[in-house]
Amino acid sequence: MKKKENKNVSGLKVIPLGGLEQIGMNITAFEYEDSIIVVDCGLSFPADDMFGIDLVIPDVTYLKENVDRVKGFVITHGHEDHIGALPYVLRELNVPIYATRLTMGIIENKLKEHNLLKGVKRKVVKFGQSINLGQFRVEFIKTNHSIVDAAALAIYSPAGVVVHTGDFKVDYTPVYGDAIDLQRFAELGKKGVLALMCDSTNAERPGFTPSERTVGKTFDTLFEEHKNTRIFVATFASNVDRVQQIINTAYKFKRKVCVEGRSMVNIIETAKNLDCISIPENTLIEIDQMKDYPDEQQVIITTGSQGESMAALSRMASGMHRKITVGAGDTVIFSSSPIPGNEKSVTKVINELLRKGADVIFQDAHVSGHACQEEIKLLYTLIKPQYAIPVHGEFKHLKAQAKIAQSLGIEKENIFILSSGDVLELKEKEAKLVGRVPVGTILVDGLGVGDVGNIVLRDRQHLAEDGILVVVMGLDQYAGQLVSGPEIMSRGFVYMKESDELIEEARTIVYEAVQKCIDRGVTDWGKLKNTTKDSLSDYVWRKTKRRPMILPIIMEV
Amino acid sequence: MKKKENKNVSGLKVIPLGGLEQIGMNITAFEYEDSIIVVDCGLSFPADDMFGIDLVIPDVTYLKENVDRVKGFVITHGHEDHIGALPYVLRELNVPIYATRLTMGIIENKLKEHNLLKGVKRKVVKFGQSINLGQFRVEFIKTNHSIVDAAALAIYSPAGVVVHTGDFKVDYTPVYGDAIDLQRFAELGKKGVLALMCDSTNAERPGFTPSERTVGKTFDTLFEEHKNTRIFVATFASNVDRVQQIINTAYKFKRKVCVEGRSMVNIIETAKNLDCISIPENTLIEIDQMKDYPDEQQVIITTGSQGESMAALSRMASGMHRKITVGAGDTVIFSSSPIPGNEKSVTKVINELLRKGADVIFQDAHVSGHACQEEIKLLYTLIKPQYAIPVHGEFKHLKAQAKIAQSLGIEKENIFILSSGDVLELKEKEAKLVGRVPVGTILVDGLGVGDVGNIVLRDRQHLAEDGILVVVMGLDQYAGQLVSGPEIMSRGFVYMKESDELIEEARTIVYEAVQKCIDRGVTDWGKLKNTTKDSLSDYVWRKTKRRPMILPIIMEV
Repeated sequence: MKKKENKNVSGLKVIPLGGLEQIGMNITAFEYEDSIIVVDCGLSFPADDMFGIDLVIPDVTYLKENVDRVKGFVITHGHEDHIGALPYVLRELNVPIYATRLTMGIIENKLKEHNLLKGVKRKVVKFGQSINLGQFRVEFIKTNHSIVDAAALAIYSPAGVVVHTGDFKVDYTPVYGDAIDLQRFAELGKKGVLALMCDSTNAERPGFTPSERTVGKTFDTLFEEHKNTRIFVATFASNVDRVQQIINTAYKFKRKVCVEGRSMVNIIETAKNLDCISIPENTLIEIDQMKDYPDEQQVIITTGSQGESMAALSRMASGMHRKITVGAGDTVIFSSSPIPGNEKSVTKVINELLRKGADVIFQDAHVSGHACQEEIKLLYTLIKPQYAIPVHGEFKHLKAQAKIAQSLGIEKENIFILSSGDVLELKEKEAKLVGRVPVGTILVDGLGVGDVGNIVLRDRQHLAEDGILVVVMGLDQYAGQLVSGPEIMSRGFVYMKESDELIEEARTIVYEAVQKCIDRGVTDWGKLKNTTKDSLSDYVWRKTKRRPMILPIIMEV
Repeated sequence: MKKKENKNVSGLKVIPLGGLEQIGMNITAFEYEDSIIVVDCGLSFPADDMFGIDLVIPDVTYLKENVDRVKGFVITHGHEDHIGALPYVLRELNVPIYATRLTMGIIENKLKEHNLLKGVKRKVVKFGQSINLGQFRVEFIKTNHSIVDAAALAIYSPAGVVVHTGDFKVDYTPVYGDAIDLQRFAELGKKGVLALMCDSTNAERPGFTPSERTVGKTFDTLFEEHKNTRIFVATFASNVDRVQQIINTAYKFKRKVCVEGRSMVNIIETAKNLDCISIPENTLIEIDQMKDYPDEQQVIITTGSQGESMAALSRMASGMHRKITVGAGDTVIFSSSPIPGNEKSVTKVINELLRKGADVIFQDAHVSGHACQEEIKLLYTLIKPQYAIPVHGEFKHLKAQAKIAQSLGIEKENIFILSSGDVLELKEKEAKLVGRVPVGTILVDGLGVGDVGNIVLRDRQHLAEDGILVVVMGLDQYAGQLVSGPEIMSRGFVYMKESDELIEEARTIVYEAVQKCIDRGVTDWGKLKNTTKDSLSDYVWRKTKRRPMILPIIMEV
């Protein structure tokens, strides 16, 4: 009896390694004694001031230091913010991956691109099925989301059960597969759930997110209203259900469908192979076959709904696409809403399309993939967790969910808004922060993973703001005088050809300042460089109120 | 009889010089024979990729070339996008300014800052009053907007009357002054209006914009709900009516009001001097007096509602403000909505405030200053113009207004969506595009007006994306060999200290490529520089998939 109690003294540690300071980069470790499992391994997209950065991935130092205990990655669904960092992290932490069918299909596409497919162990898990990972058992539970095969996880540990919803919504009439398995959540709740980690993305929005099927009805109406034009539909590449519904409507209206945009073509191919989408025969056509059909028998499904300048839609709008140009008479439906931060680029494409004479429809043909307040309340009410740990969202979203949890009777001290790196220890009667682990973000720029850090980024910001002045001079240290230069070159500061006077005067000022130093016997290059910087910086600021970066180069002659 | 007809042969030319490709930078010339008048002279804020740029102003070459005919600037209201370019343009085009009282007050503040007050002729015009400017007569008509003293203009010319609404909404119960002068619009319409140039900003939104007064009621409710906390209200500096309502509610709830943020303090000062705002005695307090009152007797009205990082609210949220810190227990009301493009920075401040423990209210305490669809229909129906020229907005907004105009029975060919630079000639029976004038944007960076052009901007973009590599070498042309270097310096590309190997290998590659050239007898510096660029660029791309700017410097030794 005594022993059994002792056994229960160990706590379950929940350690978010990312995803709580921003949208994206979701990754959370669960640790019980000698076992660690990791839920998701996502990337995030760079902030506006991270110039030149392609992707941001989590620092997994903590996992690397404990690699012997890490049993595997358990993935909730196939969106970039949940799987995108895998190809980078797996290189340093090669542990097995567990995911549902389409999720794994998308992961495998990624691993193939990175030449990692052979070396990584993978297991496809079915809904309702459990896997054993050290002291953990993880059950995959059906949910609904804007991608097929999304799962919630019930994570069983000797300290209790944690339910992690992943990204989800409640869709009673989903396009593909079953509705979210509410019965199972209820069953788990009845037995007792230690903690619920629930999607907060839409926690500020009242009500219910409409069913994906409502968008299908909208397509029917829009296609009816635009019977005589070519129709473009822009949506998210990974939203297979959305593509299914566009195809269904196209088929009803006897239109052929062409799919444009590499990422969309890839995912549809994967979805087809896994029977996650069903396309009537003779409906899909290649881009080169479009000329064989009149406009009113065509639908083009395309990427670029976020205004991405390199995506198919932007290229078709600006006339940069090699085969398709959108023009007068075409109808373009945005089946999407702008992700925060993309409003301006989406508007830019819309303006471009309208200018070309297209009819643009950018409302009503989209529903969210995330649960609104009433759905979140439903999950809490079925699961009745002891502790609430809002996840997925910025601070304001987490806070909004915390408010909901409180309104449902969960005590304030049982609700934890964590930060990345926090170690939350959960026991049957107690939950508390017990420490921190190292966390951070690693920047990916081209082939470089982590070689762009804060210093380089700050330099890029400085260069972007005011450009650079390079000052070169040749010094004869023995004779104690400048024998060549200073020459001044500008990039991103002023257009040299039109600023003769400024540059000429700047040269004189630097020359005099440096020569004065030398005359006083200073020959230390560091000091001469500082003199160059200071005198030039002062002059330029006085003249222009700008602070270009200054790079002095002294050559011994 | 014949003569009279001849006289009418001249057309009225409408020439937008900005404001139709973007939000902001509103400026339109009206030309009739020897007379030109200019409506508004606004700036726009730089696009995201205009690194380092502070403001964007219109190119007024056309006006400068016709300065003898320019009779003056006629200003509709005191927002930056309608007056902000005046201090820059007036230096090159010193003509009189005509505006209503508060508008002129704000303009005068600006001119003072730029030391231009003495040299510029100004005349304050009252609503209902007309001014004669060459062959034009311009009548100022009362409207409502998110700034006091906004005017529409009736522009009388021998060719007919054009009504320009400026930015407007229909507010039957404005906070200050009269409702929009709908009777006058009706009267003008009855007599016959040639063209209507109407605000398109909200042309996509159905319905009516609510009265400014509704926000006052919201303040009452919110103050009632937060009786025991300090209250911050963030709003636009220029929205004097909004500030008036916050003060009214504060007074009702026996709170003292402190105003923070330089631009807001300035405008309230101006509004007070002009009796555009009425502040009960002993209500305003200085920031240093705040300590004398308990939290629940304080209101802080502040700038920064757009998340501007240097504005008072951001500084108070991040603990960078010298006197006030927002913290646990405070209530912060955003009386604003994010201007498109500012969503992310607004969210950032909200997250920061929530993290600090403040209660943040960012819905319901704002109404727009622009007319929605039903208001636009009302104006068209009163004015019944022969031609419609939608203004103020991006293409999609102009297009949305064009649709409204069509729905009201205006023929498609009588609706003109113009581009900046278009010359539209209006006659009684005919309107057509008759040419183009030069237009463009001039970038202001620090003290530099126009010295940052496309080349400098492209360099900044390039530097921001991938940084710069500077390669310096000393060449002994007679001996035919490199005697020093190549040295490679990086800024914004990689962190040098951690990239020894890469830089070392790069040096070798450049050395070999250049020396090979020299050995083949090439001594032309241009060619040697190109060799440096090409060899280094290839190597770096292969190794990193990045393309830093490369600046080769060869010194004769």
